[in-house]
Parts: sequence; structure tokens; C-alpha cells
Amino acid sequence: MQRILSTDLPAHAGHPVRLAGWVHRRRLLKSVAFLIVRDAAGLAQVVVTDPAVRAQLEALTEETVVSIGGTAKANPTAPGGVEVVEPEITALGDPAAPPPADLYRPEPPSSLPLLLDHAPVLLRHPKRKAVHALAAAAVRGFRSTLDSQRFVEIHTPKIVGSSTESGANVFALDYFGRPAYLAQSPQFYKQLMVGVFERVYEVGPVFRAEPHDTVRHLAQYTSLDVELGFIDDHRDVLAVARDAVAGMLDAVGEPVPGDIPSIHFADAMRLLGEPEDTPDLAPAHERALGEWARTEDGSDLVFVTGYPMAKRPFYTMPDPARPAYSKSFDLLFKGLELATGGQRLHRHADYLAALAARRQPVEPYQSYVDAFRYGMPPHGGFAMGLERFVARVVGAANIRETTLFPRDRFRLTP
Amino acid sequence: MQRILSTDLPAHAGHPVRLAGWVHRRRLLKSVAFLIVRDAAGLAQVVVTDPAVRAQLEALTEETVVSIGGTAKANPTAPGGVEVVEPEITALGDPAAPPPADLYRPEPPSSLPLLLDHAPVLLRHPKRKAVHALAAAAVRGFRSTLDSQRFVEIHTPKIVGSSTESGANVFALDYFGRPAYLAQSPQFYKQLMVGVFERVYEVGPVFRAEPHDTVRHLAQYTSLDVELGFIDDHRDVLAVARDAVAGMLDAVGEPVPGDIPSIHFADAMRLLGEPEDTPDLAPAHERALGEWARTEDGSDLVFVTGYPMAKRPFYTMPDPARPAYSKSFDLLFKGLELATGGQRLHRHADYLAALAARRQPVEPYQSYVDAFRYGMPPHGGFAMGLERFVARVVGAANIRETTLFPRDRFRLTP
Repeated sequence: MQRILSTDLPAHAGHPVRLAGWVHRRRLLKSVAFLIVRDAAGLAQVVVTDPAVRAQLEALTEETVVSIGGTAKANPTAPGGVEVVEPEITALGDPAAPPPADLYRPEPPSSLPLLLDHAPVLLRHPKRKAVHALAAAAVRGFRSTLDSQRFVEIHTPKIVGSSTESGANVFALDYFGRPAYLAQSPQFYKQLMVGVFERVYEVGPVFRAEPHDTVRHLAQYTSLDVELGFIDDHRDVLAVARDAVAGMLDAVGEPVPGDIPSIHFADAMRLLGEPEDTPDLAPAHERALGEWARTEDGSDLVFVTGYPMAKRPFYTMPDPARPAYSKSFDLLFKGLELATGGQRLHRHADYLAALAARRQPVEPYQSYVDAFRYGMPPHGGFAMGLERFVARVVGAANIRETTLFPRDRFRLTP
Repeated sequence: MQRILSTDLPAHAGHPVRLAGWVHRRRLLKSVAFLIVRDAAGLAQVVVTDPAVRAQLEALTEETVVSIGGTAKANPTAPGGVEVVEPEITALGDPAAPPPADLYRPEPPSSLPLLLDHAPVLLRHPKRKAVHALAAAAVRGFRSTLDSQRFVEIHTPKIVGSSTESGANVFALDYFGRPAYLAQSPQFYKQLMVGVFERVYEVGPVFRAEPHDTVRHLAQYTSLDVELGFIDDHRDVLAVARDAVAGMLDAVGEPVPGDIPSIHFADAMRLLGEPEDTPDLAPAHERALGEWARTEDGSDLVFVTGYPMAKRPFYTMPDPARPAYSKSFDLLFKGLELATGGQRLHRHADYLAALAARRQPVEPYQSYVDAFRYGMPPHGGFAMGLERFVARVVGAANIRETTLFPRDRFRLTP
């Protein structure tokens, strides 16, 4: 008989069914035993009264994989209102070893090292699993929004000949005897691909040899990267960023923002009573601006535009009206940086001038900078960390809770 | 006025319009000049009669980015049946340098080194661009097929503590002073995640330090990875592989297979008149089997099942009826290996025995093998190279033609 999922049980009340999944929990009472089976969809209750089946169940440790034939029967007190009675149980493997923490407890263990050391098993906890199912839904929402706005998905090299944005925090690699590096972002490639497709996105790993042990940085994360051409200025990028985030929030069942409030960096500094020449937002600034947006506009999201050029990379478009400020932005979500973006330079001469002004050599960027000799439209884009987005939605304090198998300075397994 | 795309021109015949794009080609005739503009959607013809605009056009080299206001006018001889007349033209950047090859020629340059050295510009050729738009459509078809069959997308580590499938062909990395490696596949992680979601897929980069210079291998490619639990045997995996490939073919407008013919490895050897103990398919075998499937079944696709265990990795499920053969398969597409898959071991004891039989140590696989102590269902999966799929569809002889910015032993830029 074809297996059904636990959530399909109600549709089969009164009929024979077959379930398959993991022994989530056994409750061996005096006159009856309950077996809770966990599958991809949820939990189901199986009622055992037959002494022979009960004896068998006693040997089926938690996490053993089983197939169960029986009859679905309505019972208002069972999960989903339907349980399985008169079961025959087949183990699909050997009895499982005791997991490092009980997966049937309402909450996963609170110890992050335990969770991460034993991720292959502890990710099975329904609440841990839900976090990562949410991540998959968010990416689906991101892609479907961009697909509907004629963006094209690309896949770019993760091994590069020179470190991209800066020499710091880059992983070095032996590439057939030559030095190479892991890409810190697809920034240059997505810009080049604007010349081909006008609008592109990439969902892929990026790598930072992050020496600090913080709750918001990892050595590898999943970057959602977007770039679009033929913009008037960074406000066209803001509009796409809004749509993408709205698509992600919608896909995970969160309220979708209408307009996202926006504040210029200089105004934000005045609002926070900070010196005008503050070069960057500190975490405390992000929190304060998050609260401001919540109070003023009832919004969890706020754009901070016009970041000082001093803290932005060389390809950033300055604001011609206030050249110390840029046409770039950060998007804060619940008081934490979620995305960074802006308009980029698009004239070859501007790239040469920007590098010269920073006393940076052209050579490491040669093939990138050269491409701007062949006609590139005004363009811009943004990048967002998937794990950060999920952390904000589920209220996780540490980015490691929203990464399947995190990598940091101290962690290289599992 | 809002910009429209070249393909939208017919809907605006008789009305004022604004186009934007690249100067694809200019034809400066005696009494009239034609400007072909290229945008993300295609080409549009602009007719210039005004002497001042013509003088301006003479300075607008090919690939310069322009915005064009004018009136859309029906003309049966123009591309799409509509052209733009009485234009005013604005350059959105400096005049472009001459590209390394004329992008307006019907065919892209035939020199692969030229194409790859100047990829950022030469990918703009409409035929090159179409190849990569097709790749994006294929991935969309892959994902939508799997999403509809309750697979969950995952993102796994690309930096790993020990080389996975074999010690050969792996890139070594300095990971905060410790040795680490670039993942050759997400094989172990996708299997572990079957324990969480039952059905998972990943679209991401994989890395092989491939020392050979062939037309079908690269140092980085995009792997489409699938794994599913609660299977009866490898035939359940074949069915999903068929659906995924059918979804990809459908998405790129190619004929969709019904049933895909299947032949056991031993039968294939008999058919080809090869010794029974041949351990693997040579490229000539793949071509012959491809022709056999085309002649016998009218199919471009054929599964070769039951590969000899000798050439399969340790996690492969042997066929209990014929233990020298496995429950694994290759999928050939037009006579070339497209995907590899099969059923995997799922019992902890079987993993220990398989490694012992091969005299391989458990230690490099410890956290992977340990996870099988906690109850894993019978499962299997497959992996497919995106660039190979695209190469077969478009008839590219070299995988480098279907990779945006290929990486091989000799190539690390652009």
C-alpha cells in the first residue's frame, strides 16, 4: 500500500493506511502504548493494544525508522484528530542509538555547541527543522519576485584570481600551484552580467575569513545578490529591494511591508544626536533607527540612504549634490543590517579616477575595470544574507541557529 | 517617458516610445542611417534622417549605451514589424571602445580562447546570451518540478574538514591556519538532510582540482543535487530523475520524454560485445548506447543501471541478487553522461563494513558515518551538471561554451 504523510491522515479516516517515519516518542502505559511517528509533514499517533506489537515497540528505540500499516480512526484527542489503530510495525533499519538530546521535547536543547556538534541529528527537532523550511520558502519568494520582473539567474566563479573588495578576510587557495582566493561576493560578476542580461540575481555561497567570533558573522553564508541596469538612481534599486524582501516575507507568512520608510544617513545622525562626520552605523545606531522606524511608521524595515563615501567601496556612486555622501543604502530589519546596496559607477574613467583617488592599484581589478570600456548602463544592486534574514524572522540571537552546518573560525565540522 | 523593451514595440505602433540599450550596429547609408539597438529582450531598428541626429550617431560607436525617444511606426521589413522614427538619441555613458569582436555578426567568434578571455563583452552576443538564458530556464524547471514534489532546497558547506569522495582532485585551503578542502559534492550533507526533510535538493557550485584538460571537465561547475528517503530501491530515484530532467527540458522548450529506456550495465556490455568484467563505460560506450536508445526507443535519454560496485563509491547500495553490481545508475543524454545516482547504504553497520572491505579508514568520514546510527530511511539520489545539460541541449562541443566564466587548470580569469 502507498505510504501517506501524517498530515494526510484526516482524509483517510475509517480506511486502511500506511505511514512511514521516525519513532518520535513511545509512551508505554499499562493497558495501551502510544507511538508518535514523525515524518516530513508532522506527527501522527499510533495506538498499540496487541501484546505482540507492544513487545516489538519496546525494542524500537526513538529515531528508529519504521513503516506502519493500520487503520485511520477519528479521535478528537489525537494530533490532527485522527490516529492509527491496530498497527503492524516494520523497522526499516536497525534500532537507533539514543540521540544526544531528546527530539520529542517541546524545545530543542538550548546549548548551541550541542546543537551544532550534533547538527545531523538535532536538526530533526521539529522547531529546528521549521527554521530551515522557512529559509527555503524565503529563497523561493526571493526568486519568484525577481523572475516575475525579468531578472535572470546566474552562477559565477567562487574561485578568483585576486581578492575582490579588499585584501582582508579572504581565504587563500592552492590553485594548481598558483595562489587563488574564495570569492567574498559575486559583486564584480553580477555587474558585468548587467551588460548581458540587464537584470540578474544569484543565490550562492560567499566566503569571509572572518577572524572575529560574533553572533552575526560566518566564514560562509548564502548571499542573495541582485543587480539591475538602466536605473535613474539608487531609488530604482530600493524599489527592487523592497519587492524582493516583500516576496520573501510573503512566502514565509509574515506581514508584507507597503512602502519602506527611508532616512538619509546625515539625517539619521542628526536624529541620533551623533557628530555629522560619523562614518558608519554602529550596532547601537541600527537598533535606535529600527526603533524609530517602528514608532514613526510602524515598520520593521527602514532604508538608510546616502552612506558616507569614506566607508563604501570604490565602485560606489557618489551623490553629485553632496560628494561626501553616496547613492548607496543599507536596509535595516528589526534594528539590524539586512541588505547593503546602491548605485555603482558605470563609466570606465570614473573607475580609474576612483581607484586613483584611493591610491589603490588598478591591476587586481583589471579585467573588471576593463569591461567598463565597452558600454555599461547606469546600474546598481544589493546583497542580502539569507541566514540573517531568517534570524530576524524567527528571532534567533545567533546566525549559527539559522545555518544548517555553520563555518566559523573554530568550526569546520560537521 | 517610461522605457519599453524592443519586443514591446509592436504594441506601441503609432505612438511615442522610449527605448534604451546598446548600439548594436549602425548602417550609415547615403540618404538614411539605421541604428540597431540591442536590449535585454532583443533588437530594434531606429531610422535616422535628421542630419543633426545622423552626425551624433556617427560618434556613437558600437556598444555605447543609449536612450532613444521617437515614434513607433509599422514597417514590415523591420525586425518585429515596427521601427522607431524621428528619434532623439541620448548617450548614457561615454562612447564605447571597439569590442574584441563584432557583436552584430550572426555568429559569435569561433575562437574559444577569444570568447573566454573577453567573456564580459562577448557574452553579450545574442547567441551566447541565449545559451545562458536557457541555463537559467533549465534550473527554474528543475526547481519547480522538485518543489511540486515536496523537496526542500538546502545550502550546505563548501569548505569541509576532510576531502569527501576521494583524496584526489581536491582543492586545499588555509582555514584559519588549519588545512581544509573545497567540497567536491554535497553528497554527505544531502544524505544527512534526508533525515530532516526526507526530500532535499541543492543547486550550487562544486569543485574539482581536475588536472586533465578535457572538453567535459571544469574546476568548478554547478551541480544539481537531489536526495530522497523512503524509497523501495533505485527505481524510485530513476523516477524523480526522469521528472526533473523532463521539467528542465520542458522549461527550455525541448521535447519532454515519457518513459526513459533503461538497460542494465551487464546487458549493455553484452549488447556492445564487451567483456563481462568491464568496470565502467568509456566515452565510446556512452555514444553507442546513446545511438542504441535513439534507434530502439527514439529516445535521447537512457538510464544505464546496475553499475559494477568496483567503480562506485563506498556508500553505494549493492544489488543483493548480484552483489558485484550496484543499485546505482548513470543517465546518458545524447550519448554523454548527464547524471549519476542510485540507492545509498542506510544502515550504520553497512557503512562500517563497506569501508572495512575497501580498507578505507572511518576517521575522515566519522561525523557522516556516525549520523547513520540515529535511524536513516532507505534513500538515494542523483547529481547532474548544469553546464553539461545545457551543452547537450544546444549542441556545444565544449563545456566552457556553456559556463559563464569557466575555471580550469589554466584559466582563473576573468
